[in-house]
Amino acid sequence: MTRPLVLHPDRLFPAESRTRDIARALHAGVRDLPIVSPHGHTDPAWFAYDQPFADPAALLIVPDHYVFRMLYSQGVPLDALGVPTEDGSPTEADPRAIWRLFADHYHLFRGTPSRLWLDWVFAEAFGIEVTLEPATADLYYDRIAAALATEAFRPRALYERFGIEVIATTESPLDPLDHHRVIRESGWRGKVVTAYRPDPVMDPEAPGFADNLRRFGAIAGEDIATFAGYLRAHENRRAHFRAAGATSTDHGHPSAFTADLSRADIEALYARVLAGPVGPAEAELFRGHMLTEMARMSIEDGMVMQLHPGVYRSHNPAVLARFGRDKGADLPVAGEFVRALKPLLDRFGNDPRLTLILFTLDEDVYSRELAPLAGHYPALRLGPPWWFHDSPEGMRRFRERATETAGFYNSVGFNDDTRAFLSIPARHDVARRMDCAFLARLVAEHRLEEDEAHELAHALAYDLAKKAYKL
Amino acid sequence: MTRPLVLHPDRLFPAESRTRDIARALHAGVRDLPIVSPHGHTDPAWFAYDQPFADPAALLIVPDHYVFRMLYSQGVPLDALGVPTEDGSPTEADPRAIWRLFADHYHLFRGTPSRLWLDWVFAEAFGIEVTLEPATADLYYDRIAAALATEAFRPRALYERFGIEVIATTESPLDPLDHHRVIRESGWRGKVVTAYRPDPVMDPEAPGFADNLRRFGAIAGEDIATFAGYLRAHENRRAHFRAAGATSTDHGHPSAFTADLSRADIEALYARVLAGPVGPAEAELFRGHMLTEMARMSIEDGMVMQLHPGVYRSHNPAVLARFGRDKGADLPVAGEFVRALKPLLDRFGNDPRLTLILFTLDEDVYSRELAPLAGHYPALRLGPPWWFHDSPEGMRRFRERATETAGFYNSVGFNDDTRAFLSIPARHDVARRMDCAFLARLVAEHRLEEDEAHELAHALAYDLAKKAYKL
Amino acid sequence: MTRPLVLHPDRLFPAESRTRDIARALHAGVRDLPIVSPHGHTDPAWFAYDQPFADPAALLIVPDHYVFRMLYSQGVPLDALGVPTEDGSPTEADPRAIWRLFADHYHLFRGTPSRLWLDWVFAEAFGIEVTLEPATADLYYDRIAAALATEAFRPRALYERFGIEVIATTESPLDPLDHHRVIRESGWRGKVVTAYRPDPVMDPEAPGFADNLRRFGAIAGEDIATFAGYLRAHENRRAHFRAAGATSTDHGHPSAFTADLSRADIEALYARVLAGPVGPAEAELFRGHMLTEMARMSIEDGMVMQLHPGVYRSHNPAVLARFGRDKGADLPVAGEFVRALKPLLDRFGNDPRLTLILFTLDEDVYSRELAPLAGHYPALRLGPPWWFHDSPEGMRRFRERATETAGFYNSVGFNDDTRAFLSIPARHDVARRMDCAFLARLVAEHRLEEDEAHELAHALAYDLAKKAYKL
Repeated sequence: MTRPLVLHPDRLFPAESRTRDIARALHAGVRDLPIVSPHGHTDPAWFAYDQPFADPAALLIVPDHYVFRMLYSQGVPLDALGVPTEDGSPTEADPRAIWRLFADHYHLFRGTPSRLWLDWVFAEAFGIEVTLEPATADLYYDRIAAALATEAFRPRALYERFGIEVIATTESPLDPLDHHRVIRESGWRGKVVTAYRPDPVMDPEAPGFADNLRRFGAIAGEDIATFAGYLRAHENRRAHFRAAGATSTDHGHPSAFTADLSRADIEALYARVLAGPVGPAEAELFRGHMLTEMARMSIEDGMVMQLHPGVYRSHNPAVLARFGRDKGADLPVAGEFVRALKPLLDRFGNDPRLTLILFTLDEDVYSRELAPLAGHYPALRLGPPWWFHDSPEGMRRFRERATETAGFYNSVGFNDDTRAFLSIPARHDVARRMDCAFLARLVAEHRLEEDEAHELAHALAYDLAKKAYKL
Repeated sequence: MTRPLVLHPDRLFPAESRTRDIARALHAGVRDLPIVSPHGHTDPAWFAYDQPFADPAALLIVPDHYVFRMLYSQGVPLDALGVPTEDGSPTEADPRAIWRLFADHYHLFRGTPSRLWLDWVFAEAFGIEVTLEPATADLYYDRIAAALATEAFRPRALYERFGIEVIATTESPLDPLDHHRVIRESGWRGKVVTAYRPDPVMDPEAPGFADNLRRFGAIAGEDIATFAGYLRAHENRRAHFRAAGATSTDHGHPSAFTADLSRADIEALYARVLAGPVGPAEAELFRGHMLTEMARMSIEDGMVMQLHPGVYRSHNPAVLARFGRDKGADLPVAGEFVRALKPLLDRFGNDPRLTLILFTLDEDVYSRELAPLAGHYPALRLGPPWWFHDSPEGMRRFRERATETAGFYNSVGFNDDTRAFLSIPARHDVARRMDCAFLARLVAEHRLEEDEAHELAHALAYDLAKKAYKL
Repeated sequence: MTRPLVLHPDRLFPAESRTRDIARALHAGVRDLPIVSPHGHTDPAWFAYDQPFADPAALLIVPDHYVFRMLYSQGVPLDALGVPTEDGSPTEADPRAIWRLFADHYHLFRGTPSRLWLDWVFAEAFGIEVTLEPATADLYYDRIAAALATEAFRPRALYERFGIEVIATTESPLDPLDHHRVIRESGWRGKVVTAYRPDPVMDPEAPGFADNLRRFGAIAGEDIATFAGYLRAHENRRAHFRAAGATSTDHGHPSAFTADLSRADIEALYARVLAGPVGPAEAELFRGHMLTEMARMSIEDGMVMQLHPGVYRSHNPAVLARFGRDKGADLPVAGEFVRALKPLLDRFGNDPRLTLILFTLDEDVYSRELAPLAGHYPALRLGPPWWFHDSPEGMRRFRERATETAGFYNSVGFNDDTRAFLSIPARHDVARRMDCAFLARLVAEHRLEEDEAHELAHALAYDLAKKAYKL
């Protein structure tokens, strides 16, 4: 019962025929625009050294927490999926066995965005013409493995084939940015920029924080024994990141809490943080104050800030102990921004030189807080639907709940936010289709003129990301 | 201006014609499947003794809190609806007068699921062909009363006519389960199982808790003076319930809070609980720890756990004093699961032998916490939309908000959760139609293939409930 | 590229043709009903003295916080928009310059309700036939300015042309209600009533509270040194307001918190409030108790209560310092009603003589708390979607989330809640269209009969507001 794998040209468009016709026309105008990927987690080493990807499982399953968390939730052990362990004890090493296990459970992804992305990768990137199921597992494995051995599937070739104009990676201040240097010096015309993610040296609860701080001082060439030196280290590393193309910073905090302490208070707090360890309240206070310092530096150096709050990281201690962080056990918690951001906004919210892009995993906050905030403060913009909400329904709810209060122009286009390189065009494709579907409904309901919708579709697919992220 | 009462064959399907055609085809494949009712509140005495129902009001109005709360909200006294009082003081005793009052206010139910269920009961169960309104009140009363006097409207006949394959009731550990024994011993082929609902002996704030504990020890034949004896009493009663067909437990807690105390701490807490009364914090701690104990027992004896948290019970003291509990004055409060469930999940969340089915009345939690939790932990599954959300829009929002992150296979099909026996087929009908409507949209938008949708429609209507509840 | 400005007759109706046909038919039955505006902020002086409006900017931009907050969010200074300052320092004084700046940024409103309202004002009220854009800014300015100089654009003429049957303004107890007296004595047949908004004398955190209390005693002719005198002052002013046509009170509290203190406790608290200032907790307690007192008075004098909670007012200190309150920097916070309202409901929730209309800016609360509350307590009704949710999507979500549990008849029709007088017909038009669209979907999905939908459309557009507000 093998079925053909077909990506329908009208996929994700509303079924109602007038609306679908409008959506099609809008999409035709943006389908082939270059991809601007201002926030993500691809590995710069791929583009620096342009080596082939290892095998189908290592490319598409083992590193993709969307994929293995779903299988895990249905009782498939992470060991059997080849997820590497913290202590190096072996897990499944046969990529074909991993692939077959994945194929056995592919029906679990029905109705999920992973299914949309993966089917795009199979059909468009690899040209496979039948659906994935147990009977076609080996066919898939062989086809993908063979493709990966070709020049056409090297990272740079894919970058070019995917029509990427610019892609941002995300690095710690402790990263020497060597891969980015290699890329720049290689003469390749691809544009791979970094982004400054200082959590490892800004979050007293980060693993290895004390050691991170020492390395931070060393790499920055600053004495971080004082708060002034610590701030200079940030300024130094930010300058280094900007030289490597960075236009943004990123902050993955447990909450959106900010603070604006007096100089004396923050110096005293920094001393305690440096002596460490501090308790959760002081850690939160330090992170919160440092967001305000980051905003100040952003006004000075022009880097755009991104805040991704509201995640309870590594919720599952057994998975954390055996497999480490980022293994699908991160969970959203309730969001609050209006009170949390006030200290930062009191200082810098009215300064149009600052752009602070807000993300949430608590959708109730879209209409309750985020759209009202972004519809007032010049410094605020709304990031696209994030993580679990980077999905057709998530995108629809975001536009429906945020647009009426914040408008379209306080949003910043799409982020793919992924390390799954092959899925990047699929993710932008979903976003473009869903934005066109939303705009088409507004046109079909006579709430927007069609020429305006075309202009907006272009803005949402391309212009707003370039502008907000200064790319 | 009496109108014909017609149940349109396309009711609840989207109006758009391609989507409707798909929905119709999907529904044709599941419409006649047997009803699996794994969680509800019908009275096992009905099936044990198969006596006729008393009269139209006693069957359809007096016990239905959805019905009388709506009339009460518009100023109709509960006395006039014949709701019995705590002190036995009389209320309206004429069922025809109650029925006429209900008919006078039937327009209040426009747009509500009660209207859908009741119209199904009137049209399908009783074959009435005009709508209910003041002018037809007596016609309705007479038709229903006449039907109830016939053999065809005895509980067992209705069970068979409704195509019920299995139905679960819910009992306290203090219940001797005599009705279930009578059913089993009767030779009737209907399958009526119980479920273990230990709130009366697990919640120190339950009415009559101290007395309940004493009776619990007695019925279980255990000395509950120690925590060990108290646990043995649970184990004993659970075994007794399993022998009466139970495959599940149910827990109606004020919150999803769990705890995992040391043996010394829980023994000390139990001693205070036993001495009683304890304050709200200790009561919460006791309930929370006992959920973890229940999970442990479930791993041992295979019973599926259900958690129904987040209700402020008996909010209205005047209604409570006169009419008692469960009189439409229970109200939802904000939900939180990620932090609340962590102690239990730390112990048992990775064990696929445990199935813990989660329910909520706070819809924001679907996408924020429940779908991310169920999409990771092997032990977790998502219950269907509950209570106020057991409705077309509630079901639509549940699928739209939960599916992309948890998939379909981490949900467990439908629960009717009702004591309104005659409405059971109507409720399953609404659920099947809404699931088919959701699947039809995915197919019409080319997000799912039609053969997959057929398989899923079957799973959502039948297979998943049987599997999750081990029925 | 100037485009014609056309208000499509099917605007806001679903595109699907059967549903649209039903929506059209429903709308035809309510389109021309008189406007009942039971809650708003128009200036009674307009109707008392019937003077011409000053100029296009002063009419449509400078006082409209929806408009200037959006421009401000994109970096346009409030100074450049002519927003007056607290200290009287000058801002832009040329209305044509303000208008041009507005026209330059009119694209920001795409997808927002402001765009729908403004286009209605341009097309219907002023008869302009091209869209607003930079190239047509002067044409617009001249057309509007010319119209405002005519008799047809005086407030009373507009009131009549708009088909307003009754409109409520909102006044402080300190207001002598002279404008309303002038209106009544003028012989004009328009009906302009006031509403009692006691926040300035009930909220110890209100600006100038101590002085307000003194003036309150003076205007009421009561000695407010004791709590008994303070209550008599309210009773006195409420009677005065009722004589000026008031049928309602309105309460804009930070939360829905209520309290029901003993007489001794409230007298002691009042003494501290009178001596002032008190801290936030005592201010909240005082406000909360006074809501219960207001409910008691409402039962005595028949005035309908409105509660608008959950706003963090004047979040932006820089904007507050320069431009004062109500300048687009008010932000919603999370809502909670079930626990908050319990003290008031314990006293008066079962009394059908009380009508307490609830509003929220936290949409999750619609289905979680508000609909369940209003579907039980005789004293409660649901206000329409408020403020940021007075929009097509906001209205759709309100009906989808509240109707199944509360029904239609526990809602109270539409409030325009605006000081933007010219937009009032546009706002009612949006509400009527969206209600018809919602009802049309129910009919198209066979969840409601068409004759019922007609009756409901009439109720939602007209009857329910008149009934709930006793107008």
